[in-house]
Amino acid sequence: MATQIRDVVEQYVKLVGSGPTEDIVALYAPDAIVEDPVGTPPKRGHEAIREFYEVIAALDRETELRPEDVRIAGNQAAFPFTIVTKVGGQRFVLSPIDVMEFDEEGRITGMRAYWSQEDMRVEPE
Amino acid sequence: MATQIRDVVEQYVKLVGSGPTEDIVALYAPDAIVEDPVGTPPKRGHEAIREFYEVIAALDRETELRPEDVRIAGNQAAFPFTIVTKVGGQRFVLSPIDVMEFDEEGRITGMRAYWSQEDMRVEPE
Repeated sequence: MATQIRDVVEQYVKLVGSGPTEDIVALYAPDAIVEDPVGTPPKRGHEAIREFYEVIAALDRETELRPEDVRIAGNQAAFPFTIVTKVGGQRFVLSPIDVMEFDEEGRITGMRAYWSQEDMRVEPE
Repeated sequence: MATQIRDVVEQYVKLVGSGPTEDIVALYAPDAIVEDPVGTPPKRGHEAIREFYEVIAALDRETELRPEDVRIAGNQAAFPFTIVTKVGGQRFVLSPIDVMEFDEEGRITGMRAYWSQEDMRVEPE
């Protein structure tokens, strides 16, 4: 289970950095719930989740996950990762901590992302 | 709210490294729930939480929190920290990711710790 969860986490971060959206959505169970960031209205189900990831699909972006930062406990995982989006000659750097829950088939049933605007760093490209 | 949450997180990690237990317990709301690690039976309420922290109270230990690693979103926080316990000439090093939820008075209403045995590193003292 832990190996499968770790594998999905690595796939997830890689796909968030490169897409396609449909492959990200396919990592989620059909009735999964995404709350990103925590405190905002949750998106439930593939359609709402697809819409959510479509927003970043058009952006020039890259992600980084340090495998040694991933923590797995029971059927859940928590991990910090970094996403850099490049817009208008600037790099927007954000390192959320994501928490995910998985079903027995290794599909993500819930994702909550911990970050706020003040964690966003803006750098010249 | 975010400032208050950050302050409690910093107090919490400091107290886990030094005690006393009663001061850790006082950071929790009376009916708070602790699940540490995630996947184990939750402890509910001050008495169960006190018992939980009493286990480490007798150990020679220290903790470290990097303030820049703390993520706050809504009334919740997620943060990695490191706890080192020294037993029998060895150092047991563990860096869980903790997720906490807070009430309006800044008391912890829930704590979930993400780690497993394989995240424990043993070093000579």
